[in-house]
Amino acid sequence: MISPIFFVVSLIVSCFYASNVQDFCVADYTAPQGPAGYPCKDPARATVDDFVRSGFGVPSNTSNVYKFGFTPAFAFNLPGLNGLGVSLGRADVEVGGVVSIHSHPGATELVVVAEGSSIIGGFIASNNKVYQKILNKGDTMVLPQGLYHFFVNQGTTPGIIYAAFSTEGPTVQLMDPSLFKNDLASDIMEKTTLLDAPQIQKLKKLFGGTN
Amino acid sequence: MISPIFFVVSLIVSCFYASNVQDFCVADYTAPQGPAGYPCKDPARATVDDFVRSGFGVPSNTSNVYKFGFTPAFAFNLPGLNGLGVSLGRADVEVGGVVSIHSHPGATELVVVAEGSSIIGGFIASNNKVYQKILNKGDTMVLPQGLYHFFVNQGTTPGIIYAAFSTEGPTVQLMDPSLFKNDLASDIMEKTTLLDAPQIQKLKKLFGGTN
Amino acid sequence: MISPIFFVVSLIVSCFYASNVQDFCVADYTAPQGPAGYPCKDPARATVDDFVRSGFGVPSNTSNVYKFGFTPAFAFNLPGLNGLGVSLGRADVEVGGVVSIHSHPGATELVVVAEGSSIIGGFIASNNKVYQKILNKGDTMVLPQGLYHFFVNQGTTPGIIYAAFSTEGPTVQLMDPSLFKNDLASDIMEKTTLLDAPQIQKLKKLFGGTN
Amino acid sequence: MISPIFFVVSLIVSCFYASNVQDFCVADYTAPQGPAGYPCKDPARATVDDFVRSGFGVPSNTSNVYKFGFTPAFAFNLPGLNGLGVSLGRADVEVGGVVSIHSHPGATELVVVAEGSSIIGGFIASNNKVYQKILNKGDTMVLPQGLYHFFVNQGTTPGIIYAAFSTEGPTVQLMDPSLFKNDLASDIMEKTTLLDAPQIQKLKKLFGGTN
Amino acid sequence: MISPIFFVVSLIVSCFYASNVQDFCVADYTAPQGPAGYPCKDPARATVDDFVRSGFGVPSNTSNVYKFGFTPAFAFNLPGLNGLGVSLGRADVEVGGVVSIHSHPGATELVVVAEGSSIIGGFIASNNKVYQKILNKGDTMVLPQGLYHFFVNQGTTPGIIYAAFSTEGPTVQLMDPSLFKNDLASDIMEKTTLLDAPQIQKLKKLFGGTN
Amino acid sequence: MISPIFFVVSLIVSCFYASNVQDFCVADYTAPQGPAGYPCKDPARATVDDFVRSGFGVPSNTSNVYKFGFTPAFAFNLPGLNGLGVSLGRADVEVGGVVSIHSHPGATELVVVAEGSSIIGGFIASNNKVYQKILNKGDTMVLPQGLYHFFVNQGTTPGIIYAAFSTEGPTVQLMDPSLFKNDLASDIMEKTTLLDAPQIQKLKKLFGGTN
Repeated sequence: MISPIFFVVSLIVSCFYASNVQDFCVADYTAPQGPAGYPCKDPARATVDDFVRSGFGVPSNTSNVYKFGFTPAFAFNLPGLNGLGVSLGRADVEVGGVVSIHSHPGATELVVVAEGSSIIGGFIASNNKVYQKILNKGDTMVLPQGLYHFFVNQGTTPGIIYAAFSTEGPTVQLMDPSLFKNDLASDIMEKTTLLDAPQIQKLKKLFGGTN
Repeated sequence: MISPIFFVVSLIVSCFYASNVQDFCVADYTAPQGPAGYPCKDPARATVDDFVRSGFGVPSNTSNVYKFGFTPAFAFNLPGLNGLGVSLGRADVEVGGVVSIHSHPGATELVVVAEGSSIIGGFIASNNKVYQKILNKGDTMVLPQGLYHFFVNQGTTPGIIYAAFSTEGPTVQLMDPSLFKNDLASDIMEKTTLLDAPQIQKLKKLFGGTN
Repeated sequence: MISPIFFVVSLIVSCFYASNVQDFCVADYTAPQGPAGYPCKDPARATVDDFVRSGFGVPSNTSNVYKFGFTPAFAFNLPGLNGLGVSLGRADVEVGGVVSIHSHPGATELVVVAEGSSIIGGFIASNNKVYQKILNKGDTMVLPQGLYHFFVNQGTTPGIIYAAFSTEGPTVQLMDPSLFKNDLASDIMEKTTLLDAPQIQKLKKLFGGTN
Repeated sequence: MISPIFFVVSLIVSCFYASNVQDFCVADYTAPQGPAGYPCKDPARATVDDFVRSGFGVPSNTSNVYKFGFTPAFAFNLPGLNGLGVSLGRADVEVGGVVSIHSHPGATELVVVAEGSSIIGGFIASNNKVYQKILNKGDTMVLPQGLYHFFVNQGTTPGIIYAAFSTEGPTVQLMDPSLFKNDLASDIMEKTTLLDAPQIQKLKKLFGGTN
Repeated sequence: MISPIFFVVSLIVSCFYASNVQDFCVADYTAPQGPAGYPCKDPARATVDDFVRSGFGVPSNTSNVYKFGFTPAFAFNLPGLNGLGVSLGRADVEVGGVVSIHSHPGATELVVVAEGSSIIGGFIASNNKVYQKILNKGDTMVLPQGLYHFFVNQGTTPGIIYAAFSTEGPTVQLMDPSLFKNDLASDIMEKTTLLDAPQIQKLKKLFGGTN
Repeated sequence: MISPIFFVVSLIVSCFYASNVQDFCVADYTAPQGPAGYPCKDPARATVDDFVRSGFGVPSNTSNVYKFGFTPAFAFNLPGLNGLGVSLGRADVEVGGVVSIHSHPGATELVVVAEGSSIIGGFIASNNKVYQKILNKGDTMVLPQGLYHFFVNQGTTPGIIYAAFSTEGPTVQLMDPSLFKNDLASDIMEKTTLLDAPQIQKLKKLFGGTN
């Protein structure tokens, strides 16, 4: 006759788990974010689908000038990741493709080359020193937080790179669009970048910038 | 004649980058750790090899009872990762293999199934609710910090799972070895786990535990 | 004639303390939590009762199989604690009672034995080593974050343990209910815990689990 | 013909920047704060004026007993600062003026004397040791988090001090008003401060306290 | 014949737990601290005694003017607590005793009255509002980080208060010794506290201050 | 006869302040840094000079192509700032001078224009939107963490800008030297920046880069 014991065990477990203690904070996208992320959905309504996202099984769209594509699994599209301090992305770099110079303000990136070879990976430290290496399948590389970095696929097969980030919602600042895909006045650009006017105009045209 | 300008540009850049400002903190494994990680190697001696590690290109050793293997890229073997708050692992799960129930104290895990199909992934929340799903190639899943989780490869091909962690040196507490691969007294185990004595003895024998 | 001075002192103090600077963030339980806790109640409506909670003066209910009870003073029932990174609990362990094996994902626990003697306290590190000691009245013990730990009262008087936690809302994952008080399929449990089927069924019955 | 390339570049950039990734979190003052700050205004509605605040160009009002004034640029009046962990203030200290003893719970202050000379700056460590120095124009001084500190302008010209803080919304606890500008009972004050009753009454009268 | 399985299980567990992954960081007091705490002792040399400290079972020494005593279990005397973000203290307050006005820079305190009654607990917010309440046995009270607080035992029995802190090494700034137990010049004190000269001299004499 | 009381007061204060509790962590520059900063100098040897630094009273050296100079008060030259999460700099921008495009990985900057007028300040968000404004004396502006920003002094007087940072040792990545003052191969630069070869060569020559 085990039910009395069952009853008291249940009791302790139930009372111990008060309703507002949280293991996770599934993002409620309908409410505004705060500095620490989205408000939490009622935990009772969380399902496993809040923690799972498909889509890394197919190549990202690489039909662009860089022959590069990226698929994120970040807190904004994987709600169970909200507030948990890590995220993943799949980067595809075609033969001859590049990941142009960019940085992630405040996030470190750690990549693994899942497919491909002869992919140059590099980052530039704040003392201007370049740290670069030819990466092959199975190599991991650290890109410390906030520093410029890039990849160039010099191999003969498409590269698939999985990238882990140290925040659940890393931002990315791509150098070229930051400079050329907006209305930043050309004379200010000349002064603050020392680039020549024709070069600026050429790239503004390419990226759709004005002024 | 461009050298005067070159000179003054150099000047400002040099003086701006004082020697002790740090972009990263490459681990010096010869010194003791602190709560925040290893002391930093002199940045002037850091090389790109401190940020790169090979070894994810080949399967982890799975010749064990679980048919499971794991290769880490953590701060203890990838020194450039020290202090940067993210890490990666490659898990191999053979057909019929399992990642036994375990938790990572204080670290969230985010996995992507790189190869394989019909892999059950699951975690158990602190209210005992099980969140589980059959994962296929390209699926990502969040395992919130500190909670028990497991994988079972029910598919017909080996699974390769890349796991990102929210710290650079996650620890892992595997349930079975924690209980059975040490000298924890059997009578205490009986009381604190409610497992039966013969079950405890059987698993202690399997894992090499005593008492 | 002191009033002019009084006036200007008041003035400076008033203007200095702008309305939105916050000393604390009393939980507003009517709004959804975020990753950092509950939204704040208007500070002007905070009273001392938001910072005080009674109830540790009487024993927790220990009428269960473990002879164990727990009373929390966590952010979910002590609103002034919201966001402040510490909490307390009172644990009662009857003679012969136990605190079964459990962990607090992401929270360190520091206990003091306020009453009682011969209480075994122990935790298991991730290398499976057991750290255990017989605790008496006045002894404190650290249970590092996320690791399994347990207590057994082997003394002749009831134990009262005060437990401080490093977060304001620690969660707890109790090993047995996590495994046996849910619908986790028995065949998956067998594979991921190596427990025998009859043992699993016996404990599922005890805890009310299914499958 | 450059538009096809322009198109694909745009494409990648657009898809990369999903709507919910955040560079900043401009405070929405109409919603309640949380422990980490105010909820974020829709980033699409953020303007440069959310990041700019005027008012440090004119002296703060110093017509009070201390001959001291303070102008803050904190998250509560500079919305773009929300969640970003730094703030600034301008302090004016007339000839003979003082910044009375106070502390900032949880925030470190780093000051620079922009104008003035012979300004005594000091802080008191928790072992009661006083660290003080006569500061002149161009001197910076660290006031470690939470410790009592003060300034006295012993020079012959008004002092302007810029103060940087390690949080975006530091609070300040001024010793005198904390003691004397409220209803704290005099007998409790006598016991907990060892000040004499007449002294307490005198200062309560000055600051408008009761009891 | 179970040894082959035992062997492979051991294997996986051993290789998984690399030597430098840390569950805890037991303080090595012989090496200098860093901002995050003490360097870690070699984990292989950690014993359970690094995590246990006796001494809360007897009253703290209260033979002083305040009739107050305090026993800490902080990282500096409980090495296993290093880096773990929580600590405990035992405060004894005799009948008529007081805990004089003080603050903990950067640490929140959460107390429970373990013994005693009619103990006034209070804190003062940065807007000078006093939050105070008469506490009895079993009451808990939050003292938010960095704010002045105090206790007065107005009951008829000695009070025992357990205090949990949100850091492993909270500092304390006691108002009176901070002002009067050092060489802070009296004229500066008069200006920055508005206390009268005789009052200052009287308390300097009591606390052993000079100048 | 006041000495007995004095004695006991001293006693309590002495025993309360154990030697290893730290208010601050003055940098010991002779020891290697860790991820959280420098090890601490023995607190007993700290002096007020560890917390004070002169040098902001005179203009920074602006005799370079940008007509810009910068003087830091960071943890590497102001040891008392170590671990405290804030820093200051003085920037001088001559008439017509610029602060070229740069970012601070992981640090937010908050500036105040102390002298000068018609200084354009701007930053570029990760969606490429430019936030810019003409700043005058007394204006403050937020530059959110990790984003590109710049200043151009279009006024008729030299600008003095005080900049507060959200870390004690912010790094700076200046776009031009990062690209052109090192040995980054030109063909990789062309691919990853889309700049033309002649432009790259011209700037490499200016900044002293090779390859």
